[in-house]
Amino acid sequence: METLEKNTERLEVGLKDVLRSPDDAPLIAVLDGYHPADIAEVMERLDDTDSIRVFRILDLVRAAEVLDELDSDTARYLLDNEVPERIASLLDILPADDVAEIVSEVTSGEKQEEILQGLADRAPEDAQDVRELLAFKPGTAGRLMTDRFVSLAPNQSAESAFATLRSFADDAETFNALYVLEGERLVGVLSLRDLLRARPNQRLSELMIRDIVSIPADLDQEEVARLVAKYDFTALPVVLSDGTMAGIVTVDDVVDILEQEQTEDIFKQSAIHAEPGVLNAPYFSAPIWRVVKSRVGWLILLFVAETATSSVLQHFEDELKRVVALSFFIPLLIGTGGNAGSQTVSTIIRAMALKEIRGRDAWRVLLREAGTGLLLGLLLGVIAFVRSMIMGRGLPLSLVVSLTIVAVCAWANTIGSLVPLLATKLKIDPALVSAPLIATLVDATGLIIYLNIAHMILKELH
Amino acid sequence: METLEKNTERLEVGLKDVLRSPDDAPLIAVLDGYHPADIAEVMERLDDTDSIRVFRILDLVRAAEVLDELDSDTARYLLDNEVPERIASLLDILPADDVAEIVSEVTSGEKQEEILQGLADRAPEDAQDVRELLAFKPGTAGRLMTDRFVSLAPNQSAESAFATLRSFADDAETFNALYVLEGERLVGVLSLRDLLRARPNQRLSELMIRDIVSIPADLDQEEVARLVAKYDFTALPVVLSDGTMAGIVTVDDVVDILEQEQTEDIFKQSAIHAEPGVLNAPYFSAPIWRVVKSRVGWLILLFVAETATSSVLQHFEDELKRVVALSFFIPLLIGTGGNAGSQTVSTIIRAMALKEIRGRDAWRVLLREAGTGLLLGLLLGVIAFVRSMIMGRGLPLSLVVSLTIVAVCAWANTIGSLVPLLATKLKIDPALVSAPLIATLVDATGLIIYLNIAHMILKELH
Repeated sequence: METLEKNTERLEVGLKDVLRSPDDAPLIAVLDGYHPADIAEVMERLDDTDSIRVFRILDLVRAAEVLDELDSDTARYLLDNEVPERIASLLDILPADDVAEIVSEVTSGEKQEEILQGLADRAPEDAQDVRELLAFKPGTAGRLMTDRFVSLAPNQSAESAFATLRSFADDAETFNALYVLEGERLVGVLSLRDLLRARPNQRLSELMIRDIVSIPADLDQEEVARLVAKYDFTALPVVLSDGTMAGIVTVDDVVDILEQEQTEDIFKQSAIHAEPGVLNAPYFSAPIWRVVKSRVGWLILLFVAETATSSVLQHFEDELKRVVALSFFIPLLIGTGGNAGSQTVSTIIRAMALKEIRGRDAWRVLLREAGTGLLLGLLLGVIAFVRSMIMGRGLPLSLVVSLTIVAVCAWANTIGSLVPLLATKLKIDPALVSAPLIATLVDATGLIIYLNIAHMILKELH
Repeated sequence: METLEKNTERLEVGLKDVLRSPDDAPLIAVLDGYHPADIAEVMERLDDTDSIRVFRILDLVRAAEVLDELDSDTARYLLDNEVPERIASLLDILPADDVAEIVSEVTSGEKQEEILQGLADRAPEDAQDVRELLAFKPGTAGRLMTDRFVSLAPNQSAESAFATLRSFADDAETFNALYVLEGERLVGVLSLRDLLRARPNQRLSELMIRDIVSIPADLDQEEVARLVAKYDFTALPVVLSDGTMAGIVTVDDVVDILEQEQTEDIFKQSAIHAEPGVLNAPYFSAPIWRVVKSRVGWLILLFVAETATSSVLQHFEDELKRVVALSFFIPLLIGTGGNAGSQTVSTIIRAMALKEIRGRDAWRVLLREAGTGLLLGLLLGVIAFVRSMIMGRGLPLSLVVSLTIVAVCAWANTIGSLVPLLATKLKIDPALVSAPLIATLVDATGLIIYLNIAHMILKELH
């Protein structure tokens, strides 16, 4: 563990120190022995000129690995400012899927073309591979896959397969899963384990599994991650509609996606627009204007929706004037409704993401959540009643408050499950139904419930 | 893809149909060809008697794989109701880490002992391995690891290493990472790639990497997952304090943890107590009383905290009586504060989980978030001002509302970053600082800000 990350703080302090001097020797010494992921992390925290200076001093292989680990903003800056020849040599080192990812960070099409051209001058086939990957939509299996997999022929013997493995030593990304191809068509898979168990002269056609689990190139990456997690795959082959094997997606890509999707879901659930510039940037790297931009849209929308509460209260102006104590409980009641609704919506959206809830479960979900809300409301209602009586609010108002709690909790849980279910029906991403959105919807409707119950029970309002 | 999960609905319908008849033949036919993960998923949706009937009809290997995939409740029920001999044979098939996980689901110590004794009668060494794993704390690397790794000796040649690989064919969980041991001490690692590249007579001591990255057995599983994701490891060796190699944690365990931790974080962020019975159960499997239990604690706590708003408003009873329109804006102002605070707290907690924020960054974080809040508040304040003027609320009240928006947004963002930072300082898990908690804290304080600004500006209140 000594060489990992415990030292990134030391690296950062050390770098800032030696960067003050124009001498390169101490810089090289400080960087020595650090993992590319750690160098990338510290470079993201440096200012642009320092970061490019560090980048230029790294040897080619390490620079390529660091480039692969950097967030979009820093990578884009380096690509824009490094000499084209060095970029081409760096990209030449990395696998095509990583190059595609890096090149896609560059926003200008012209610059992208220039980089790909540079790579083509050096390694025309690699550049072609990258172009093919870039043709797939971002966020799909096609963009994640690598063509660095072990491919064997069905009539090979186990012994000769081992020799083939050796020829893939530098290239293949995994040896756990081996693929048997006829021409370009995937006809079977076998594991290294199967190969190790086999007799030397056994044919692969006997050893391989023909019942292949494969994914299409346009499968959403979140779905790829879920399949790998559920079925414990170490790699999944990507097969085109004509049966051609295009590449494999490996479990380590899935780990990165899971982390990224987790951030995305958290942002969506908190009503933050999940734009890549903020989503994939480390906390301090995103400029404040971009953070504001990612948050302000939903804030304004929710603000406008929330103004409905003003209209509701204005409508009941007379009641609020006559019993001013009614207003004391407004934040408590809508706050509790918002909390119950938040709990429900997060539970439902998570269950949907894990495919635990299907379309035809809608009624079961609604009944279950409304029932849960009712139970929670009854428990809280009793507490509210006792507390209000102790505070000397009198029986009628205490009754109004506690009945409202019951109704609002049941209602909030209904809204909290109904809205994501509706979104799915309307083909809207349910993860966009954030907790603040549910809270906002519950606020105005909760007030209507409250003031109507008050109207029914309080004599002063008759 | 045909055999995977698309068919779980069909499997469920088919099973429910054939389970009506006491005849076993159609049941066997319906189950044929399904993946254990899919059978487990459907079994969780059946009632207990049906689920054990399905479980008993599966052949040993499939039953073991299904048992490994089931959620705690269903697994516990089966372990409590299946004959001890069959349980012992099932556990005998699974690797020790999976058995430890299954056995730890059983809540009664007596039953646990009975199961381990049954396994010991059949496979004393396996039972011993499981006991050793159970000695590690749940949620640590020690509980996740497997001892099914390829171990080699430093003086072996590359050629003889291949022969050793063959002897591990049935046993090892991965062949990508190979471990070189001297006695029980880990002295080097090498990848299968390195071995494939080597000359047949090269010694492993020449080939292996001596600068080993290892983890201690008590490392938190979330931390294990983060390291694997950051450094793209396929497996990490777990080394005890005396240098003994205890096992490896593989990337596929990490995928499961990431998914589980993701659910846990979502629950915590929504003020749901993340107890295992609800956390790891599929949506419909958790009984409602347990769902209520997981939600009611935080709801009551937040309710009690939120009653502070009643006290604040009661304190300003006179002001609310004199200008009843002040109460119209209460939900709008505290709602907006709550939304801004939710955005901030989720951003901060995510950045903390990814270690993008460190302890000494506290002041930078606070300034950044307060600044963001101020900017957001200014934007929303302008909108609020224009809207309030158009609605004919008059200049003074419009000014009060829009100034409050500015102040509340800046304040909410400050609270939203300060509280998780404080929690970390106090060694409390910052993920427990939920969005509803921040919203609740902002509600009472936001009202104080609002009514004080009103007091300063509105002539009617002087």
